[in-house]
Amino acid sequence: MDYGQQSLESRRKDNVIKITSTKKIRSKTDLSVFYTPGIAAVSKEIAKNPKKIFDLTIKKNSVAVVSDGSAVLGLGDIGPEGALPVMEGKSLLFSQFAGIDAFPICLDTQNASEIIQTVKLIAPVFGGINLEDISAPRCFEIEKALQDLGIPVMHDDQHGTAVVVLAGLINALKVVKKEIHNCKIVISGAGAAGVAVTKLIIEYQKLTSEARQISRCSQNHMRLQPSKFNAASLFHIVLFDSKGAIGPKRTDLNMSKKELLKITKNKFSGSLEEGIADADIFIGVSAPNILTHNMVKSMHEKAIVFAMANPIPEIDPKIAKKAGARVVATGRSDYKNQINNALAFPGIFRGALDVKAVKITKNMKIAAAKALAMMIVDPTKDRIVPSVLDSKVVDVVAAAVAKAAKKDQVIRK
Amino acid sequence: MDYGQQSLESRRKDNVIKITSTKKIRSKTDLSVFYTPGIAAVSKEIAKNPKKIFDLTIKKNSVAVVSDGSAVLGLGDIGPEGALPVMEGKSLLFSQFAGIDAFPICLDTQNASEIIQTVKLIAPVFGGINLEDISAPRCFEIEKALQDLGIPVMHDDQHGTAVVVLAGLINALKVVKKEIHNCKIVISGAGAAGVAVTKLIIEYQKLTSEARQISRCSQNHMRLQPSKFNAASLFHIVLFDSKGAIGPKRTDLNMSKKELLKITKNKFSGSLEEGIADADIFIGVSAPNILTHNMVKSMHEKAIVFAMANPIPEIDPKIAKKAGARVVATGRSDYKNQINNALAFPGIFRGALDVKAVKITKNMKIAAAKALAMMIVDPTKDRIVPSVLDSKVVDVVAAAVAKAAKKDQVIRK
Repeated sequence: MDYGQQSLESRRKDNVIKITSTKKIRSKTDLSVFYTPGIAAVSKEIAKNPKKIFDLTIKKNSVAVVSDGSAVLGLGDIGPEGALPVMEGKSLLFSQFAGIDAFPICLDTQNASEIIQTVKLIAPVFGGINLEDISAPRCFEIEKALQDLGIPVMHDDQHGTAVVVLAGLINALKVVKKEIHNCKIVISGAGAAGVAVTKLIIEYQKLTSEARQISRCSQNHMRLQPSKFNAASLFHIVLFDSKGAIGPKRTDLNMSKKELLKITKNKFSGSLEEGIADADIFIGVSAPNILTHNMVKSMHEKAIVFAMANPIPEIDPKIAKKAGARVVATGRSDYKNQINNALAFPGIFRGALDVKAVKITKNMKIAAAKALAMMIVDPTKDRIVPSVLDSKVVDVVAAAVAKAAKKDQVIRK
Repeated sequence: MDYGQQSLESRRKDNVIKITSTKKIRSKTDLSVFYTPGIAAVSKEIAKNPKKIFDLTIKKNSVAVVSDGSAVLGLGDIGPEGALPVMEGKSLLFSQFAGIDAFPICLDTQNASEIIQTVKLIAPVFGGINLEDISAPRCFEIEKALQDLGIPVMHDDQHGTAVVVLAGLINALKVVKKEIHNCKIVISGAGAAGVAVTKLIIEYQKLTSEARQISRCSQNHMRLQPSKFNAASLFHIVLFDSKGAIGPKRTDLNMSKKELLKITKNKFSGSLEEGIADADIFIGVSAPNILTHNMVKSMHEKAIVFAMANPIPEIDPKIAKKAGARVVATGRSDYKNQINNALAFPGIFRGALDVKAVKITKNMKIAAAKALAMMIVDPTKDRIVPSVLDSKVVDVVAAAVAKAAKKDQVIRK
């Protein structure tokens, strides 16, 4: 019986999540305490001071897993009903890995304004919002519009992926002994994940470059002059979608791809086959089998290949290795180096909820990635990220995220 | 420590509901079955046939407890945050009494159209919608607009209350040996509960009268001529709001009160004090201490008084009894005859979910009331309804509701 059949069989018998009462009503007194009239005191307390909702209700620990079913797994636009099993699965992971009360919310609309409005209206019950499987470019607009809700709102297909990719990349670079500033990076896929991976890598490059600059300056007993710091020289990233490089010659770019062109400052136009020559790093969040033996062979020595299309990667890891790639990762659990969102999202929300963060900042994401990377003391080509089943992952990520939230001062007063 | 303080203390430590995973992810195989890639098979199955969502997800057993916080307990309009503890308490009762996965949804709007739209948009995840603590008259419009969602939608402040009142009334009438057709009924309170109680009593009167008529006809070997059946002669109900009787002289009636006037066919105008003279039954869902000793004294012999204002009833039960009332009930747990919604809503939704009902019909509500009444084999003035803590209540109500749903053919195909 394959995984799919097992999944179906199990679900015919039983749901994967369950809502239970933590109190047993055994007497009229219990009923008076946990329901009326006792409950009125709790309601009055919150009505008087709405912030107490975080101390006295499920809001302190609840996350809505919200989808419109427009980009579910590799299945695409299958609607809110089809999306529900995946959101339940995600809720299960939230519960088991992070002890978070996550509940699936599948919306019967794919209109961005309606999604934004609905999330705002149901927000009182939730301490966080995990947006999930919403297609680009609407996902960017929706996430952005919800940043002032006063609770962390994160589109996991973007940032969960980006955090784990960055964690893997930090350790893969250690393995091949390269520095990210000297690397040419090719990213295939300019949807939700591709956009977020690109942005987070750029932020990471800036931060580490600033750190190097500061350290160099302090060695010279000079003060850093941030205004002279030219970020433009730092990164060399080319993004590709199904039509080729996101370059200056393209006339068909949507808003988010135009923004990517602007921030990557890419001048190259052409195919992935041309663009990948001499690249140090390939990151695929796109489609099955688009990367060939010869394309990997044309990459720079000791190449890093993250082929994360699901369930079939951009290239079979064996072929990639044969073609000369030094470190290969996929999204699959049956190969080495599984780059899986589940390494990130439970800990990110756990940390954010623990310190009452009002949003997830870029520093919190980078802190999560670094913490994940640091868990592997001595990275090898076959071990760049911890296992999803490692019970320490959530605590380590949560602690790093909580610390960064405090530093960024995005804590609810 | 009073109930309120105990409730607060408990909630500072712990939430009353919890979302847990029923599956333990211990291996990569578990992850592959319960998350990706296995989950894709479940999503595909539902995408192909959306009805399977009821077999393969939490929807088979989930109820949203939806409020806008506009009419919470006796506290009034305290907003969605203040309402959350009550909705959690309700979810706790759903879980413990009926094994239903109920989740609180508190909406940050009191606009009826926005509430209707939001409930429609989040409906894919839920097998039923329990509307709660939404003020009249918006609650009527909202409930009505959601009747075609394909899942049962019920405003509990209306129908849960009405079902338990009718159950109590059926047995109270047995105690005083009166028939409902010969009774003058006074109802104080024309909000959500008052409206629903009135309508359900009228439906019950019609049904029992039809039954009597049929039985009389069959005794006479005659066929019933339904067209000659005059329902108007059946009921004698006068409703009162804070301004007096809902009568023909009133010029300030809103839509729902106008409808009540139409269906009760009441001709009386005047105060509760005048109107209650000679009444057989008083049903209060209004305000504390509005009923006096003398008013009860002016009622017909062997009067029935249901004083259900919460937490302080329309009259102290001791005073009512002293004034001559034979059967007295309240909403409180510290007096005999507690008329509590918790006797109805868990079983109503349990029964509806069990048979995949698409709505809650009047026959399902009457069946629930009759079943509740029948649980008391030999009613006495101090025992007209079962205890909320009686574990048989849910099963009995659910079975009756399920049977009525089948008879009404409101079962999902």
